[in-house]
Order: sequence, then C-alpha cells, then structure tokens
Amino acid sequence: MKIQLDCIPCLFNQLIRTGKFIYGNDINKIKELIDGFGYHLKEIDFNLTPPHAGQILYDYIIEKSGIEDPYGKIKKESINLVKNKKPLMQKIIDSSSDKLLTAIELSILGNIIDFGATESFDFEKELENLNTEDFNLKDYKIFKEKLNNSTTILFIGDNAGETVFDTFLLKELKDRGKNLIYAVRESPIINDATYEDAIMSGIGEYAEIVKPGHTLSGLDINLTNDKFRNLFYSSDMIISKGQGNFETLSDCKRDIFFLFRVKCKVVSELLNEPIGEAILHYHFPNN
Amino acid sequence: MKIQLDCIPCLFNQLIRTGKFIYGNDINKIKELIDGFGYHLKEIDFNLTPPHAGQILYDYIIEKSGIEDPYGKIKKESINLVKNKKPLMQKIIDSSSDKLLTAIELSILGNIIDFGATESFDFEKELENLNTEDFNLKDYKIFKEKLNNSTTILFIGDNAGETVFDTFLLKELKDRGKNLIYAVRESPIINDATYEDAIMSGIGEYAEIVKPGHTLSGLDINLTNDKFRNLFYSSDMIISKGQGNFETLSDCKRDIFFLFRVKCKVVSELLNEPIGEAILHYHFPNN
Repeated sequence: MKIQLDCIPCLFNQLIRTGKFIYGNDINKIKELIDGFGYHLKEIDFNLTPPHAGQILYDYIIEKSGIEDPYGKIKKESINLVKNKKPLMQKIIDSSSDKLLTAIELSILGNIIDFGATESFDFEKELENLNTEDFNLKDYKIFKEKLNNSTTILFIGDNAGETVFDTFLLKELKDRGKNLIYAVRESPIINDATYEDAIMSGIGEYAEIVKPGHTLSGLDINLTNDKFRNLFYSSDMIISKGQGNFETLSDCKRDIFFLFRVKCKVVSELLNEPIGEAILHYHFPNN
Repeated sequence: MKIQLDCIPCLFNQLIRTGKFIYGNDINKIKELIDGFGYHLKEIDFNLTPPHAGQILYDYIIEKSGIEDPYGKIKKESINLVKNKKPLMQKIIDSSSDKLLTAIELSILGNIIDFGATESFDFEKELENLNTEDFNLKDYKIFKEKLNNSTTILFIGDNAGETVFDTFLLKELKDRGKNLIYAVRESPIINDATYEDAIMSGIGEYAEIVKPGHTLSGLDINLTNDKFRNLFYSSDMIISKGQGNFETLSDCKRDIFFLFRVKCKVVSELLNEPIGEAILHYHFPNN
C-alpha cells in the first residue's frame, strides 16, 4: 500500500515520539528536529509505502541527532518486561482448549508493543482482558488448512518484546514438526527486533533467525538479498507480524497470513476494520 | 495557553482538511501545500497560542492558493442546515423544565460544527441524543448567580452554524432583560462566523453584533481595537464559545464563562476533561 495524506501528520507524531526518546522533555531540541524535517517533506511522495516514508524520517533523525539507535534501551526493557510475564502467558496457553488459536491471539496481542505507532501501552492489562479483546480471526480456518500442508514456514517478526509473545506460537508450530525461519530487521529501526533482540527473546530455541539484507520498518522484497528473496518465495507458508510488514507486503505476489493490530485510520479504511482490532488477515494475490 | 509539540501534527491535519476544501481530491496539489508549509515550521514557536500558530498556517494557505475564504460556501450551508432544525430545537427548549440550562446545552452542542478541528460531524444525531450527551456543566450554579448580577453581557461567538444554536441561549438571556453584544471574527478564518454569518443566523434579533478589530480563530485581547477592549473589560459578564477562544483567553485577567466541546489532547490534559466532553468552564483569574 502507498502512503496517503493522513500519513503526513502521523510522520510528525512519530518524529515527536522519537524526539522524546532522544531529548527527553527538551521541547526546543525536539522543535529543531521538527523544523528541520520540514525541508524534507518534498521527499515524501505518494509512491512510497508508509515504512519507506518512515525510513526517510528516521534516516533524517539519526543524521540530525547523531543517535544511531534511540530505542535500543527501551527495546531491551520491553523484552525483559514481557519475559517476566511468560509464566502467566504459559498458564493462559495451558488452560486453552485450542492452544494454536490462543498462541495466535497472544502473538497478535504482543503487537501492542509498538513505539512507532503509540507512546504507551499496558500489555499486562491486555493480557488480563484477553477474552474480551477485539479479535477478528476469520481466516483461522484457512490458516489451519495451510498449516497442515506446510513444512517450511517463514515468520516475519516485528517489534522487540512482541518477539517474546511470538515464542508461544513458534512452539505450537514446532510441536507440529514445522521447519521455522524467523526474519528480523537487518539493523535497528524504531523498536523493531534485530538479530540480537530475537536471540534475547528466546526465538533461537524454535527457529533459525535470518536477516533480510535491508533495513526498513517493514519488508520490501525488492530490496532484500537473493537468499532471502528465494526463501520468501519458496517457503510453504508465511506468517507476517505487525502493520509495517502489512504496509510493505500488502500488494505482493504471494499469499501471506498477516497478524497485527490495526493502528491507524489509513489501514483501518483499507481493510474496513476498526482501529484497535486484532486481526488474522489472509492475503491471497489472486483474490 | 501556548502551543505544545502535539499541536504540530494537528496543524498538518488542519492543512489537509483545508486543502481538501480548496483542491478536492487532487492530492498532489494538497501535497504541494504541505511541502511548502514545511519551510514555515520554524515560525511556529512555543510562545504562540494554537490560534496564533493556526493564523500562520491559514495566512500561508491563502497566499499559496490564492483562495481568500475556502470555507465560505460550507459556512452558508451549515447555517441553512441548522436553521432548518430550529423547530426541533425549539421543541426541545419548550419541553424543558430548565430552559436556560437546555439553551446552554444546545449552544455547546452547536460547537460540534468545527471544520478547524474535524472533517465531519452529525449534529442531527447529536440533537436526538441530547440527554445522553457528555456534558460537564459543574459551573452552572455560578453562571446563574453571575447572570442575576449582570446587565451587559459580551457573548464571543465561534463557528458559522453554531451561531444558530446560540440564538436560543441569546433569547433566554434577552428574556431576562440583558443587554447583549455578540462578537464575531473581523474577517473570514476557517469556518468561524463573520458579521454576515451572524446576521444570516438571526443573531441580530437578540444582540448587537460587533467586530473585534483583528482576525484570529480565537480572540487576542491585546490585538483588538480600543473600543472592543473597553467592552471586554467593562461588560458585567462574558460568555465565550469554542475551544479557539478558550485557547487565546485562558490566561486573561478577567473572569469568563467558556462553553465548548473539548476537541484535542492538549486541552483535554490542561483541563483534565476527556476529549469530546461538552463543558461550561468558569475561568476566574484569581483562582
């Protein structure tokens, strides 16, 4: 999908959130960042996906501030915070009559940890309210069918911390004898998970962790290295986490199961799903 | 009150809404407007109130587009639309046991018509749901006390269309023998009511209509002409409509009754009232 007009104010919201991570409450320094980005607006054109537009913003922020990884510290904190909640999540899985479904729900719930789209979140409260969460898992049946006919599954990760939630779904898949590959970001971008974050989250216990060969808060299959591109097209099944990956892959030529929480008006209108809805959406290019 | 960081994305939202009024669905023309405004961001500093910052934006839009009054047509449509609903409003007033209170509620309800803060609204639905509306009229008691001791009342208007809602409150005040002055905007700014809009809305039947001597989507008492400034300080009571007037007058040295709907996070946090709340807020400078 391409950016729309409403993505412009959202880029400024992202800039302000990141500015706060870098400069704390020094609003004058954050305002300098804002003013400088004004000169880059003409680089944001309507042929870009939201993560490609975001990359222009984040490249600018890094260049202007000199801070390479503003979210590095909060990513580690997020992972540790969620790891401490693993016993509670395990209990939820253990008491479920459909462990695969519950693991999918937990994995989508983890998508609440997103500093690109929001400033704060309370995932403990979300965990407690799992049963009343707004899930739309209408494509679960076809997910199970596809799973039965798949051996190699490419799992495209999203945010650090969310990665820990993913381990429960990865375990369910591994218990079914699947060969799992987990894609991370090539290098730091917002709070997206890198190789180190995935290792710290325990992903390595269930899946081979791979880098795509390019950095974006999403995945542009035309920019990845050949090895990753082959993997992408040859895997039996792809599970993709988060709205950023959906934004870059929504027009791609192969089928994908997207698991994410709808986070903005633009995607909400595209999919006709309310903002906040946690969805399992099957993308099938011939549809 | 002064602008905060969150006001910057909001300015871009306003720019996009106004761009749509000028260029319709031509997103490339709207994007040109956006790109050009990027160069003006450094003029928006933290000493400005939101309407002062907005004035920089709207002056830029007029200069760049050559369109003096993008909201002129929709203002007239709003006024006619609301005038058609006057019998329904009259019925609501007639069946009320506290007509003054109901007239205040209607007047605040009219503040939903605001193209500066939102793209669409359904005031007919709001009228039907008047009883379940989120009102916080905690200062109504002091409003009545002040009213009993007042002869000359300055009423500071806000949006075109909202003006028609105001006539019911003006009538209640006039029936109590008050001398009413209704302030409009000096010249067009967003969909704020000008002299012509107030006349068209029937305000002249109840109040003398005055211009303040400067244009802003709010009221800066330091920029008004002397006559208006004298009126402002000498009136027994001031009733001010809309968030824009609150934003420019919230630090002023005299007491004011603010009637408006809370429309953004910044004001919501300042007043500790949820977004969407319809409030009667008494500002008393010694408080």
